[in-house]
Amino acid sequence: MADAITPRDQDFSKWYVDVVRGAKLADYSPVRGCMIIRPNGYALWENMQRALDSMFKATGHENAYFPLFIPQSFLAREAQHVEGFAKECAVVTHSRLEVDPATGELRPAPSSALEENLIVRPTSETIIWDAYSTWIQSWRDLPLKINQWANVVRWEMRTRLFLRTMEFLWQEGHTAHATKEEALEETRLILDLYADFAENHMALPVIKGVKTASERFAGAVDTLCIEALMPDGKALQAGTSHFLGQNFAKAFNCQFQNRDNELEYAWATSWGVSTRLVGALVMAHSDDRGLVLPPVLAPTQVVIVPIYRNDDERVTVLESADAIRADLADADVRVKLDDRDGYRPGWKFTEHEVQGVPLRLAVGPRDVQNGTVELVRRDTSSKQTVVRNGLRDGVPQLLDEIQRALFERARVFREENTMAVDDYAAFREVIEGRGGFVYAHWDGSAETEAKIKEDTKATIRCIPMDDDNVPGVDMITGEPSSRRVLFARAY
Amino acid sequence: MADAITPRDQDFSKWYVDVVRGAKLADYSPVRGCMIIRPNGYALWENMQRALDSMFKATGHENAYFPLFIPQSFLAREAQHVEGFAKECAVVTHSRLEVDPATGELRPAPSSALEENLIVRPTSETIIWDAYSTWIQSWRDLPLKINQWANVVRWEMRTRLFLRTMEFLWQEGHTAHATKEEALEETRLILDLYADFAENHMALPVIKGVKTASERFAGAVDTLCIEALMPDGKALQAGTSHFLGQNFAKAFNCQFQNRDNELEYAWATSWGVSTRLVGALVMAHSDDRGLVLPPVLAPTQVVIVPIYRNDDERVTVLESADAIRADLADADVRVKLDDRDGYRPGWKFTEHEVQGVPLRLAVGPRDVQNGTVELVRRDTSSKQTVVRNGLRDGVPQLLDEIQRALFERARVFREENTMAVDDYAAFREVIEGRGGFVYAHWDGSAETEAKIKEDTKATIRCIPMDDDNVPGVDMITGEPSSRRVLFARAY
Repeated sequence: MADAITPRDQDFSKWYVDVVRGAKLADYSPVRGCMIIRPNGYALWENMQRALDSMFKATGHENAYFPLFIPQSFLAREAQHVEGFAKECAVVTHSRLEVDPATGELRPAPSSALEENLIVRPTSETIIWDAYSTWIQSWRDLPLKINQWANVVRWEMRTRLFLRTMEFLWQEGHTAHATKEEALEETRLILDLYADFAENHMALPVIKGVKTASERFAGAVDTLCIEALMPDGKALQAGTSHFLGQNFAKAFNCQFQNRDNELEYAWATSWGVSTRLVGALVMAHSDDRGLVLPPVLAPTQVVIVPIYRNDDERVTVLESADAIRADLADADVRVKLDDRDGYRPGWKFTEHEVQGVPLRLAVGPRDVQNGTVELVRRDTSSKQTVVRNGLRDGVPQLLDEIQRALFERARVFREENTMAVDDYAAFREVIEGRGGFVYAHWDGSAETEAKIKEDTKATIRCIPMDDDNVPGVDMITGEPSSRRVLFARAY
Repeated sequence: MADAITPRDQDFSKWYVDVVRGAKLADYSPVRGCMIIRPNGYALWENMQRALDSMFKATGHENAYFPLFIPQSFLAREAQHVEGFAKECAVVTHSRLEVDPATGELRPAPSSALEENLIVRPTSETIIWDAYSTWIQSWRDLPLKINQWANVVRWEMRTRLFLRTMEFLWQEGHTAHATKEEALEETRLILDLYADFAENHMALPVIKGVKTASERFAGAVDTLCIEALMPDGKALQAGTSHFLGQNFAKAFNCQFQNRDNELEYAWATSWGVSTRLVGALVMAHSDDRGLVLPPVLAPTQVVIVPIYRNDDERVTVLESADAIRADLADADVRVKLDDRDGYRPGWKFTEHEVQGVPLRLAVGPRDVQNGTVELVRRDTSSKQTVVRNGLRDGVPQLLDEIQRALFERARVFREENTMAVDDYAAFREVIEGRGGFVYAHWDGSAETEAKIKEDTKATIRCIPMDDDNVPGVDMITGEPSSRRVLFARAY
């Protein structure tokens, strides 16, 4: 079944791809840069979607759907926006294929050339703010808090399953507010929501912060982000929440009558997380035997494998296994009984291990007799025989414990791989060596930032939103710095 | 707020658009042919999705996601498929925009022309069967039953909100089976599932049948469908389920080792319903005052409007209204308390009426005193004062009653607008007059079918899958006919 997984210490990138493909989460596609999300991967994404969607709705957001295509001219309306996205976009130029009489091959019919080319959305600020400009007339129409679940395309040839693909799935929230304060508050609310999701659902500790000007979203006044540390010492941006000021309102002339009867441009935010999170999840917790999933997001939390050697045993064991299944399902555990014929238990064990099911129960004839079950944790491989009657209470507790253990392991790893550095030589040594998060002083200039990036490939992941505001001096220029910022090489 | 709705009898098309826009379900977009699904419309689609998705999962289907783009050459692999879709598709030819030095305007960068053009999927058989050919090796890998929720594009300039748009949202199921019988069974299972959904969720009676060769899906061996009758006497195809035979397996060389160790091509089905169903729902039940929604799908089933004239009354009334809300929510009713300030009750009544909320409760100071509530049904406008304590049991019952009443009204309408005709003159009179479903004998030839379509714009909606197999003679040619088929003009 599963091909061997390259050990993580041997080749991290290859290990990652082996885990993703071994667990049947995704596959390459014949369209370069695009991937196929297989049922196991999509089930994971669905669980992420469901959790996030509830959080959005609980905070007063509604879902909607805007067109896939954006007129070329729209992209050009916001200067930085077009700068950011024109270089890598899919351009639709024709609306029909025909057989080329010269070659006999299909070609875009010249007579179907579009009057205005369409861009497959790389993000939807422009098309959405065009609509908002017709929907928003008065302060009574605000705030407008809309989210959409959609696919977007950014031309991208260096593909990495989930982490970097030409097409990806995401949610993008777009809100309009009557005041700057309210928009800023929304930007922070969403950042907190993303951090909550990352830590409590994905078991992924994150650092909240603000991007520097050069790392900002194209068109934003400020970009907030959450940053996670991956086991190879590289950072991964796990979500962004942008304060857009009045940039898009101005570009699309979205004015409203405020409470003082004056015309004013609306204040905007936008924010998103994508299927990239699936990649982060895989990297953060998996091991050399395959996928490890936090129970909160695992499509199957518990699998029961029946063990028998003949038809008599089969009947007894399956009956008992199914009773356990029903019992756990009743306790809201996502449980599956793997009663497939024609596969040996050992083969099933391996499959569920590779696919990251948090808990495996095995039930054999002796277990039925003794009222026991063999229980194996995916994260620690610890095996124990437990009393069958304790499962209904014990399993949910154990799943909680696994969830906490995964978060704790990732937190300890991050702690052990985070350091403060004052000297540029030491900085380079860390960044070019074991990697990790490095806190260092920075003089706030784009030049210094660019030099560090060129020298070391490390970028400023964010200016953290913590209380550690101790001043110092820039490690290169010696200029004053108001606080340390977070550096790392990144995905 | 709401602009006036054109009476349905005056101009059906205009009435439809007025209802859709008045209820804020959807809006036109600056991209010709594409629409914006607004929060009210999307919430409806989400409820449809949730119900269908559960039905798919309960019958053993899994969700996945395949690329948006299809290589041009893929489309050409299945002869009828390319015939059907090449004429109206969005063709991506470039991957970058640049400023044209001559005009200063943006243009697709000539240097970014793609080696092979990409088509925005009009449907995904080709890209999916390419993947299946690598996933399916043995009968053990079958059946493979995958569904995807996605956007698709079919170039289309005559737009009608929801009913016909260039981009639309849908689900497309694609299954692979080891035997022809199993694939046929799947095709029928899904048709039944769609009919169940239409009738029991949408309150829309449908007729199940088989398409004639000329109305088949491009690449299918057989297309099954459900057909509904709209209030203007036109038919609307509400879902299709295709038996694809081995056509796509052959085009993409998807062979498997069967139980006898022989190589065999896999058997396929595909099936889908789309956001078009939202349009069908709107048309089927709404009236001159706006949207009417069946309670099973209504995002808000009950709205409570508080009525007060001063702050004292406000406190008492809101307290009582909120208690009712909590009580109904606890009984799993989707209920909303409309406690917005600054809108008069009458204004709120109209808004909820236009937006199709099935039940409206009004609570005033006298109601609080008397322990009563004023209750208005959206479908009949009937108003009654009921005892507050009876709501918890009474409201769910009433919602069931409304659901049944809507279905029954649509069923009676269809019955009254369905007739059997033996004579072509009479046939034309009905079709060109009041419309409706017409059962007539047909000799089975494509020529006769085409002539009728040309004469009257009526098409054979389906050969019904009922037991009414009484033979007769074709109304035009006099040739023998084994049974009546269903004609109508259609959306």
